[in-house]
Amino acid sequence: MSFSMTSIDEFQELMKTLYGDRDVDRGVQGTMLWLVSEVGEFVEAVVKHESVESMNDEAADVLAWLCSACNVLGIELETAATSKYNGKCPRCNGSPCKCPKK
Amino acid sequence: MSFSMTSIDEFQELMKTLYGDRDVDRGVQGTMLWLVSEVGEFVEAVVKHESVESMNDEAADVLAWLCSACNVLGIELETAATSKYNGKCPRCNGSPCKCPKK
Repeated sequence: MSFSMTSIDEFQELMKTLYGDRDVDRGVQGTMLWLVSEVGEFVEAVVKHESVESMNDEAADVLAWLCSACNVLGIELETAATSKYNGKCPRCNGSPCKCPKK
Repeated sequence: MSFSMTSIDEFQELMKTLYGDRDVDRGVQGTMLWLVSEVGEFVEAVVKHESVESMNDEAADVLAWLCSACNVLGIELETAATSKYNGKCPRCNGSPCKCPKK
C-alpha cells in the first residue's frame, strides 16, 4: 500500500474542488449516468485484459465519479462507508465475514 | 465532513480483512458483477427517491465492492486515485477543472 495517506473525505473534497460546479450544473441524473459509464469502462478494461495502467486508471475514475455522485447527493462517503463497515461485516458482525456463502 | 479519518488504503485493507478470502474464491468476474449489481442498487435508490439512509447505505456498498474488485485485481485504489487526481484535473491541469464542457 501507498505511504501517502489520503482519507476518503479528502478525496471527495478534492473532487468537489475540481468538479463540484460542473457536477451541480450536470445534475444528479447526468452524474449518476457518468458513474455507470465509468464502471462500464472499468469492466471493459478487465474483460479485455487491458494493461495494469489502464485498470488502475479506470478504477480511479470509478472512485472519482462515485465521489461526484455523493457530492451532488449530499452523501458523506467516508461517514457512510465507515458507519456501515465499522471494522466488521454489517450482516454477521464477523471479522472476517462468516455469512453463509451464496 | 466526518471527524474520523479513514484513508482509502485503510478502507481497502478492511475489505481485504473482512472479505478477501471470499473475494478470491469468487474470482475477478464474479466480483466485478457484484460491483455492477451494487452500482445498480445505488442508482435504484436515487431514481426511486429512497431515504437518505438507503442512499448512504448503497453508496457505501459501491465503495466496498470497488475495493473488493481492486483487491482481486491487485490495484491499490488510493495510489491509483491520487496518482491520477493529483490535486488537479488530469486533462486540463486546472483546479477547478477548466476542460471544455461536453
